[in-house]
Amino acid sequence: MQLGMIGLGRMGANLVRRLMREGHECVVYDVAAEAIEQLAGEGAIPAASLAELVAKLDPPRAAWIMVPAGYVHGVVDELAGLMESGDAIIDGGNSYYRDDIDRAVALKPRGIDYLDVGTSGGVFGLDRGFCLMIGGPDDAVARLDPIFATIAPGVEAAERTPGRTGDPTPAEQGYLHCGPTGAGHFVKMVHNGIEYGMMASFAEGLNVIANADIGTREHDIDAETAPLRDPQYYPFDIDVRDVAEVWRRGSVISSWLLDLTASALQASPKLEEFGGRVSDSGEGRWTQHAAIDEGVPAPVLATALYERFSSRDGDEFANKILSAMRKQFGGHDEKPAGGAS
Amino acid sequence: MQLGMIGLGRMGANLVRRLMREGHECVVYDVAAEAIEQLAGEGAIPAASLAELVAKLDPPRAAWIMVPAGYVHGVVDELAGLMESGDAIIDGGNSYYRDDIDRAVALKPRGIDYLDVGTSGGVFGLDRGFCLMIGGPDDAVARLDPIFATIAPGVEAAERTPGRTGDPTPAEQGYLHCGPTGAGHFVKMVHNGIEYGMMASFAEGLNVIANADIGTREHDIDAETAPLRDPQYYPFDIDVRDVAEVWRRGSVISSWLLDLTASALQASPKLEEFGGRVSDSGEGRWTQHAAIDEGVPAPVLATALYERFSSRDGDEFANKILSAMRKQFGGHDEKPAGGAS
Amino acid sequence: MQLGMIGLGRMGANLVRRLMREGHECVVYDVAAEAIEQLAGEGAIPAASLAELVAKLDPPRAAWIMVPAGYVHGVVDELAGLMESGDAIIDGGNSYYRDDIDRAVALKPRGIDYLDVGTSGGVFGLDRGFCLMIGGPDDAVARLDPIFATIAPGVEAAERTPGRTGDPTPAEQGYLHCGPTGAGHFVKMVHNGIEYGMMASFAEGLNVIANADIGTREHDIDAETAPLRDPQYYPFDIDVRDVAEVWRRGSVISSWLLDLTASALQASPKLEEFGGRVSDSGEGRWTQHAAIDEGVPAPVLATALYERFSSRDGDEFANKILSAMRKQFGGHDEKPAGGAS
Amino acid sequence: MQLGMIGLGRMGANLVRRLMREGHECVVYDVAAEAIEQLAGEGAIPAASLAELVAKLDPPRAAWIMVPAGYVHGVVDELAGLMESGDAIIDGGNSYYRDDIDRAVALKPRGIDYLDVGTSGGVFGLDRGFCLMIGGPDDAVARLDPIFATIAPGVEAAERTPGRTGDPTPAEQGYLHCGPTGAGHFVKMVHNGIEYGMMASFAEGLNVIANADIGTREHDIDAETAPLRDPQYYPFDIDVRDVAEVWRRGSVISSWLLDLTASALQASPKLEEFGGRVSDSGEGRWTQHAAIDEGVPAPVLATALYERFSSRDGDEFANKILSAMRKQFGGHDEKPAGGAS
Repeated sequence: MQLGMIGLGRMGANLVRRLMREGHECVVYDVAAEAIEQLAGEGAIPAASLAELVAKLDPPRAAWIMVPAGYVHGVVDELAGLMESGDAIIDGGNSYYRDDIDRAVALKPRGIDYLDVGTSGGVFGLDRGFCLMIGGPDDAVARLDPIFATIAPGVEAAERTPGRTGDPTPAEQGYLHCGPTGAGHFVKMVHNGIEYGMMASFAEGLNVIANADIGTREHDIDAETAPLRDPQYYPFDIDVRDVAEVWRRGSVISSWLLDLTASALQASPKLEEFGGRVSDSGEGRWTQHAAIDEGVPAPVLATALYERFSSRDGDEFANKILSAMRKQFGGHDEKPAGGAS
Repeated sequence: MQLGMIGLGRMGANLVRRLMREGHECVVYDVAAEAIEQLAGEGAIPAASLAELVAKLDPPRAAWIMVPAGYVHGVVDELAGLMESGDAIIDGGNSYYRDDIDRAVALKPRGIDYLDVGTSGGVFGLDRGFCLMIGGPDDAVARLDPIFATIAPGVEAAERTPGRTGDPTPAEQGYLHCGPTGAGHFVKMVHNGIEYGMMASFAEGLNVIANADIGTREHDIDAETAPLRDPQYYPFDIDVRDVAEVWRRGSVISSWLLDLTASALQASPKLEEFGGRVSDSGEGRWTQHAAIDEGVPAPVLATALYERFSSRDGDEFANKILSAMRKQFGGHDEKPAGGAS
Repeated sequence: MQLGMIGLGRMGANLVRRLMREGHECVVYDVAAEAIEQLAGEGAIPAASLAELVAKLDPPRAAWIMVPAGYVHGVVDELAGLMESGDAIIDGGNSYYRDDIDRAVALKPRGIDYLDVGTSGGVFGLDRGFCLMIGGPDDAVARLDPIFATIAPGVEAAERTPGRTGDPTPAEQGYLHCGPTGAGHFVKMVHNGIEYGMMASFAEGLNVIANADIGTREHDIDAETAPLRDPQYYPFDIDVRDVAEVWRRGSVISSWLLDLTASALQASPKLEEFGGRVSDSGEGRWTQHAAIDEGVPAPVLATALYERFSSRDGDEFANKILSAMRKQFGGHDEKPAGGAS
Repeated sequence: MQLGMIGLGRMGANLVRRLMREGHECVVYDVAAEAIEQLAGEGAIPAASLAELVAKLDPPRAAWIMVPAGYVHGVVDELAGLMESGDAIIDGGNSYYRDDIDRAVALKPRGIDYLDVGTSGGVFGLDRGFCLMIGGPDDAVARLDPIFATIAPGVEAAERTPGRTGDPTPAEQGYLHCGPTGAGHFVKMVHNGIEYGMMASFAEGLNVIANADIGTREHDIDAETAPLRDPQYYPFDIDVRDVAEVWRRGSVISSWLLDLTASALQASPKLEEFGGRVSDSGEGRWTQHAAIDEGVPAPVLATALYERFSSRDGDEFANKILSAMRKQFGGHDEKPAGGAS
């Protein structure tokens, strides 16, 4: 079927490619003309503006927005002004699900359906398929089923879960209608919250392994240094790259994130090209808001999020306060930099 | 080649089966006679005692111990008394790596090699293969390579990591000589620490999804209850089972633990048969000791571990203290049980 | 000077008493007639309605609201309808500071000043004085200075901070104009966030002391139980009550919360009358929202908050998922209840 | 009575001064001759060696060791060789309580009593008194009661706890016989664990206040930056110094650590002279070991400890792994430094 795509970055462009492979027709627009040209060269129908994109789609239209969260609102507004009753707007980006709920309410009087589609898969989605978490009205979701089914990885991407028999459900094919508007981005939000926790688990664990040689290093003996009691138990110089690799097969923690970690370490065993300033893009934060509102504890996910803030020096003043307190009650001076211990 | 197996529980028995499938000869012993009989019926050579097991092995012998951590020490001691120089003892259980180091030192004068092999794979290892993390002297590890290679899943169990070319290394086949004695269980220890963090990430996140209907429930308005400000943003009745399923294909968090979660929820969507008292078996604890000794932060893994303690009511007195403090400064009475909010 | 007080619960009534002691005139209202009578008997001017309360105050009026957070909005609305330009409304409760900002904007056209005053001191405030964190316009805050100065503890409540000389500032007397509207409740919010962290610190630590006899208890040896390696190091039967007491003098952690803990343990050494279901009243939650919005890590405060959710069984489904995963990959059955280890 | 003091740093010297003020006789030794001279000038009896110190004490002798944890073992050994049955060694430093237990066992055959005394009070102890947490045999503790009573702050240092009547117990005077050998340092260990949690609570909270102006700062709009949704709620430029001050009187979180924080901020409102590399001296680590061994959750204390490790860049490799993963799955590049958001 036909789909308009707005935003032709990594994700948007690959969605278009995956759809065209299966014969869907894509009308594409981006603020960058070269992105449009690129995809037009691959078979997409170019549109020089949102108005042109809407004009080139047959009603009932469907336009998929794939732009940074900060720009979604403006695009939805402009698009809604160009569309008519029966059309559908799909936000495939990382919007806050609460905005979805508000937007759906605002668009309802005009008869425009609003769908929120959490999209996971990253730069590998073109071949691997994208996992889709969908929120919106039943009939609109049903109408767009061929689009979702094409984008999703398909049931063969993983062995079927024991007990799942018969025709594979959409969930088994990699796309799920999670509930009414907002439910898609809600589930995607939590997905990313979990992602942060898993990533932190690997990062902390591999860091423990990378420092298993602490017993072979020199240490100060003074009141400012916690003594290492048993250096004989930390003699290990372990190849972190091989550890990530061996865990990929047969271990309990085998996972796609581990695969990626092994790739990264294979390419750069010490990861020197990274500074360790870790960004976060919103979902981990919103997951905390939801956990707190629900009265549901999520301290592992919170701590994973906050580690990212610390990596970006968000803890600077807090740490100065700690040093200042220690100076006050114990006359302790800070030790200069020089290692983890 | 030939291997003695001591301890024929789930793990030990499946190791034997996997070895026999590939033509290795296994002499087996367990404290439970029926476990020996069972495997003898499948082709293993039964031994009625450790002495008989040692007698039935040709030197240089290799005996693999697969018993609960609390019993390893006694078995190693007895076994060492029966063996001779050139033989090897393999501890495949979940021993603390420090004990490995101590045991290797104790066995060295007798010329007995001691290997510690962290073994991951659980009840699925028979077919899936086991991930092996190996510590010990180079020559002994090399001598036992055929055993390890058979137990491990093999390179075809996962796509090769980009950049890994040529003959697959042992790490790519699912077994790794991590370093000298202790290194194997050290890496396995951290593996389990990571496992706890990943499990907690999924558990916390799915709990947030399971409670996304909080806005539809009744709430008290009083000084003891934090008000839910925006109930309209928590209208969702989301099928947690389908969420776990959809994430299995194409998402960033796809993983074996997610596969298992989907299986569990497929079998029992509400998990009513569980009470939520979560055991831990030591490695998560030791991972914390190592992180602390190394001066490496591991708060996500720590929090995941401590959540298990809380699930078993280890926080009981602490919570009473909190309620007592609130009563003291604010005259607050505890609210009776009745939901998460 | 003159003040209207709306809400005569523990906090409101004690504020009135403290003000009257110093000669201020208080007009008082509550939904409960007996609360009004009680304070009228102590010298306050009773008002049977908000309208009567406003009528009995001379312009420019000042009315202090001390009601549960869920009721503030309605009271402010009704009160604003009765007041005139130049009057002031003071919210002394635990409102979310964002509501203050919104309310001040709404009241501005009518010329009514809105002040948010975070009030700490609990049931002891009558004698100890209340710590006041004030937000609002400069002139209104200045006009009400005599009220604030009377409610606050006064400089003699603590030794002066080294370097603070000359006339004591309001901050040194226990009240502070923190900034424009919202700043008072913002600072109070963080105060409570810190309070949760401190309380959790004591609770966790005392729990470690209370369980220092773990080495003298029986333990299972099985695959579901992490073995206690060194029971000889946990022989202690320590009197937690005396520990709380000894820390009150000379230790680094001496604090009012410790004083209260010592009181509670003195009255009830085992705290049997508490069930350990710990409420939270909103500020700890909002502190997390602020930390997240600011990109400032607050994992200690987050964890303290989430421990309260767990104490109220908010972790129930998460724990079931953990047990279900363990059952899946390792065939582990849950152990029945029976202690922390 | 008479006491030998070994180690005349800040703590040791002030203990001697406090004892001499009340008429006790102190024989003093330090590796630094000038430290001995200084105290000799104030009335102490100098000793040029441990042998001389022992020789100058009348049996039954009591020698108090106040040296960095790394040196305690050597001093105890040498001292024990010089002492005779009936003498007592007091370790007043920050030893690991397990070492106390081991030392007491080793000294028992020679009839030398070993006492472990956790000593809190910092540089202010001379005037404020020191809080003493004592472990050791009953009769030795009883014999040294006059020493402990002098060092401790005395009952007047705080109001008596309601319900405590009659003659003040030692706990009320600021010293407590916690139990057999090791119990003193065990309680002190947990004291410091709690201290870390309280310090972190203040540091995190004040950091939230210090960044309450985030809404007035510029922010990027891109896929690597979580958008600040409601900048209008973060307009505050709050004086952190005054906030610390106002909380000192009447608030729930008033405490000695807050007093010290107020002092530090009074002297240096921005704390520019600190780099924020926060040391830890062992007790916070050991508290975690104990919590884990006991099966008692202590995630707040763990997180506080780990924040210190992160402040010293112990998280460096972990953060690089996180950035590397993000690059892998999303093609995300790290953002350069420039603020917390």
